[in-house]
Amino acid sequence: MGKFARMEPATLQSVGIGGGFWGERQETVRRASIPATLGHLEKEGRIDAFRLDWKPGKPNQPHIFWDSDVAKWLESAAYSLALHPDAALERKVEHVVDLVAKAQQDDGYLNVYYTVVAPRKRFTNLRDQHELYCAGHMMEAAVALWEGLGKRKLLDAMSRYGDLAWRTFGPKRWQKRGYCGHPEVELALVRLYRATGKRRYLDLARFFVTERGRKPFYFDIEARARGENPDKAWGARGIAAKYDYFQAHKPLRQQDAIEGHSVRALYLASGLADVADECGDRGLLDAARRLFRSAVRRRMYVTGGVGSSHDGERFTFDYDLPNERAYAETCAAISLVFFAHRMLQMEADGEYADVMERALYNGVLSGVSLDGKSFFYVNPLISHPGPLSGWGDQNSWTRQSFFGCACCPNNLTRMVASLGRYMYSRSRDGVYVHLYGESSFESWTGGTRVRLSQETEYPWDGTVDITVSPDRQARFSLCLRVPGWCRGARITVNGRPVPVGRVTRKGYAVLSRKWSPRDRVRMVLPMPVQREEARPEVRMDCGKVAVRRGPVVYCLEERDNGKHLADVALPRNGKLKARFERGLLGGTVAITGRGVRRNTGKWGDALYRAERSRPNPVRLKFVPYFLWNNRGPGEMMVWVREN
Amino acid sequence: MGKFARMEPATLQSVGIGGGFWGERQETVRRASIPATLGHLEKEGRIDAFRLDWKPGKPNQPHIFWDSDVAKWLESAAYSLALHPDAALERKVEHVVDLVAKAQQDDGYLNVYYTVVAPRKRFTNLRDQHELYCAGHMMEAAVALWEGLGKRKLLDAMSRYGDLAWRTFGPKRWQKRGYCGHPEVELALVRLYRATGKRRYLDLARFFVTERGRKPFYFDIEARARGENPDKAWGARGIAAKYDYFQAHKPLRQQDAIEGHSVRALYLASGLADVADECGDRGLLDAARRLFRSAVRRRMYVTGGVGSSHDGERFTFDYDLPNERAYAETCAAISLVFFAHRMLQMEADGEYADVMERALYNGVLSGVSLDGKSFFYVNPLISHPGPLSGWGDQNSWTRQSFFGCACCPNNLTRMVASLGRYMYSRSRDGVYVHLYGESSFESWTGGTRVRLSQETEYPWDGTVDITVSPDRQARFSLCLRVPGWCRGARITVNGRPVPVGRVTRKGYAVLSRKWSPRDRVRMVLPMPVQREEARPEVRMDCGKVAVRRGPVVYCLEERDNGKHLADVALPRNGKLKARFERGLLGGTVAITGRGVRRNTGKWGDALYRAERSRPNPVRLKFVPYFLWNNRGPGEMMVWVREN
Repeated sequence: MGKFARMEPATLQSVGIGGGFWGERQETVRRASIPATLGHLEKEGRIDAFRLDWKPGKPNQPHIFWDSDVAKWLESAAYSLALHPDAALERKVEHVVDLVAKAQQDDGYLNVYYTVVAPRKRFTNLRDQHELYCAGHMMEAAVALWEGLGKRKLLDAMSRYGDLAWRTFGPKRWQKRGYCGHPEVELALVRLYRATGKRRYLDLARFFVTERGRKPFYFDIEARARGENPDKAWGARGIAAKYDYFQAHKPLRQQDAIEGHSVRALYLASGLADVADECGDRGLLDAARRLFRSAVRRRMYVTGGVGSSHDGERFTFDYDLPNERAYAETCAAISLVFFAHRMLQMEADGEYADVMERALYNGVLSGVSLDGKSFFYVNPLISHPGPLSGWGDQNSWTRQSFFGCACCPNNLTRMVASLGRYMYSRSRDGVYVHLYGESSFESWTGGTRVRLSQETEYPWDGTVDITVSPDRQARFSLCLRVPGWCRGARITVNGRPVPVGRVTRKGYAVLSRKWSPRDRVRMVLPMPVQREEARPEVRMDCGKVAVRRGPVVYCLEERDNGKHLADVALPRNGKLKARFERGLLGGTVAITGRGVRRNTGKWGDALYRAERSRPNPVRLKFVPYFLWNNRGPGEMMVWVREN
Repeated sequence: MGKFARMEPATLQSVGIGGGFWGERQETVRRASIPATLGHLEKEGRIDAFRLDWKPGKPNQPHIFWDSDVAKWLESAAYSLALHPDAALERKVEHVVDLVAKAQQDDGYLNVYYTVVAPRKRFTNLRDQHELYCAGHMMEAAVALWEGLGKRKLLDAMSRYGDLAWRTFGPKRWQKRGYCGHPEVELALVRLYRATGKRRYLDLARFFVTERGRKPFYFDIEARARGENPDKAWGARGIAAKYDYFQAHKPLRQQDAIEGHSVRALYLASGLADVADECGDRGLLDAARRLFRSAVRRRMYVTGGVGSSHDGERFTFDYDLPNERAYAETCAAISLVFFAHRMLQMEADGEYADVMERALYNGVLSGVSLDGKSFFYVNPLISHPGPLSGWGDQNSWTRQSFFGCACCPNNLTRMVASLGRYMYSRSRDGVYVHLYGESSFESWTGGTRVRLSQETEYPWDGTVDITVSPDRQARFSLCLRVPGWCRGARITVNGRPVPVGRVTRKGYAVLSRKWSPRDRVRMVLPMPVQREEARPEVRMDCGKVAVRRGPVVYCLEERDNGKHLADVALPRNGKLKARFERGLLGGTVAITGRGVRRNTGKWGDALYRAERSRPNPVRLKFVPYFLWNNRGPGEMMVWVREN
């Protein structure tokens, strides 16, 4: 545990997710997504690229970030195998690891592109070329294989690469004072440090985090060394060329707002939190807090999506959250979960868990189809066929099986496959339950082994039955998250009510007592249909509400509600009913109610008219946002006007 | 008059606009805009460029469309001088004309860029280089100087260029089968034909109009001749490279929708209408009708702005009219007036005049500041400081004194300076009044000279007093437009009521009678404040209304209504009062009423919340859209939510 950590996440193997909501999703990832994404990587030569036999003129020229796609696939497979042995998959993993390890150079360097496409150019363009980003993802895969399966081969290889990086980058005169344009290696180095105990990896992570944004800008120095004029980089418009795109416009300690490319910003913030924790650096922790608040209190969609702009896949300015043109990359919502999860361990504050849950059930899961075989890169809150036509796979209005820039699919699989780590934590004197869902958790606390198990239909129902089973009677705290969305949570222990308000601190009901084997806790989180407003500064959502039930944000789809969804309005006081429908979208709670819309038929071919329309009543049906576009393409809308 | 024309526009000199709304604007153009734009053209070397003494390495390298900027300035000055002699301005004009004429090559060719920057490349890239577009604007200037001031020098020069073009382009084996990527020369050639009587210019215009879009595509042929692969033009995304951007994707007779770059599309449509009329080509007339309906019934803002997309400055798809990201270039609204005016002469249908009026009082005039010295290139219907920051002068959220691409300022000055031509027409048996405003008109009809004069405060008041003064008693029709926005128009002739409904055909009240000197007609157009809806397919405007009074569309400005305008809503049945305020924005009718908005203060730092807000009553003040941004920068919004 780090210096500030008040708890540590569950290990992957300590959590069992047999069935229920997340169990089904993990099974889909295991059975469909991991094989399907491997198929794409193989077909496109991204795995064979590690054979290093590409020659100019041959097809499938390795791309600068292919290494990271393979790494994330390995990491996903490692999580999946750790929970569900599968001999065939394990052989695949070993085969890929062998290829990767063989591709490593004698001095520890590993990068397909810079070995076969642009040799002798390594580390000459940290700004644009994703070199250390690829290294970071491979380090994460290595740690996952070691921690989950006890496989050391890739860990040893990536440690050698870590050693090379540690010698290459740093403040000394003969070292490069650089950092990667796409953060990722920072958090990976901390994982590598935790897995190996070798302090140099933490030192290097700390160097990357604290050097970033210092003047003179390293990106300028290396550009000049390449013979380029850094002021003319990235075209005349120059917006993307400003260093806030890379979070390198000023040192992190001086940054107050989350800026630039959203995935970069949140990977970096995650690494920042890790370094702050491990180094006990309060200034860095403060910076992390500021960035978190900027991201979630001023720049986050109601779905937990972040990074609103297509131009630069980036954050823009406070409260700028366009719905139809939302970018909200799947990877960005995932990296928000990474960041929130790290902050939660240090701060034990339910706001972090609320954000984590909001993103998971909405902007993360929207990235994958029900069958696990197709993915959204971009997650708009309004979808209309017109604006996206002709903009290529990333911006398609229906999920795609893979992408040229294939970051999202395997980011999603590794998130879902490792979900258990996000559900529980262990603290010095107890256990935390952050996320509800059918599962079990085994941990040591209060001097004994404790087994928790949750039985629940969450998120479709708010009743959670928890069995607490210490090996022997013991005093410890069971800290149950009371979601920020919930009013009137009730808890009983062995049938006796707990005064929830009195025992709740920062979003966690702390049940401190002497626990006995098979103690039973029931938590009831009332889940009425709620209408969420956005604050008045969010100009796109004024006069509108988002329909939410529990952690799940809902949307209207054309399939259920016809075309021209923008014309639908919800009476302010109309009743909305929730009902579980077994046959709908794999079994889900749908919400129905009365709405109104105008009659297009009466307009002739007038575009505008002064005559006033009388809206007609219509029946509306909402489905969970994350399940949209699973019944063919069509319009979709989250925020609905009230009238 | 052409084959289909049912009337012909007033000549510039036959209309007097002494004062009133348009008189003031013409004076501002004369006193401020024409000198100011000349100053910019001089300072940037766009006029001296015609000296042809630029050499590589020298500053102020002539740009491919500089010729057109100078031409439009000349045209504006010609209109202004025709009505208001001004010796100093006339000397300037003669000086510029001398420079231009001297720059003409021996064979008639005239283009600064292709003479000094890229010699020997002339007519090798019609698609991108605006060569004939420049020629067209210079032809228009030449016609204006000849018709308005009797100056022949430029007309002779541009006739020689017209002759060269006529020899160069055409269907014969030795000719180029091309047409300009930026239409303009088509309508200019028809003007040149009408001014000179030389049929070859009409023939060439007809060739350009009918050849366009035929296969094999000329743009492909010339690209291959340049050694380029036409499929790779304009970058990988390729959207702009599709020939619908140039209206060259198929022959005009087969086009049903207005497509591509909006100014190109509407200049072309204007030329199409001219050619249809002069050639009596019913197929081309039908095409023009279809394009007009597509533009105004499915793709026009409530302000008369068109071309909604920043990407490609273009039309997109039906009902796609984003407010904040509206492009709605000033030039596009102006060219819509050109097109509507031409169609109106052929069809005598008030819909064309309604569109002309809507554009003029809103999307055209919004392009210029009250003082005549600064201009909008882009005319959004919502303005917010955030989205436009860092996007350069064209997209600034406050008017600019000039632009690198300076098409809009002098397009606006020539429109305002020649406004009289749009107000009246003469038909075989009468006169038409299309636009109301303090003015007079002299014409021959029914075998006598007739003088009309309007006394009115229009557009601020709907009462129009018209004195009809034939030299002697005569029978003819006075056709008064009954605006499409008007309900309950009343007309009296010498105090006696006219049954307006009974005498109105296609938007014109036809008063056919024997007129005597000093007959007095009073027209009363009731002007209540109206709320306009957009049809349900316009997804951005659902649940919203545009406040309009008479032809003038209103907006809310931050100056009067505070920040976060999107949060303002208008009670559906609230009263809106109109009052003329002498001290406001040079004297204008403002509209006030009650609205509601939420209280930002009560939100703490929550971004979303399930607790419902109670909106507070506020007082709202609307000002004419075309007058926005004359009191410093700030938010602005046209469409307002109702609740």
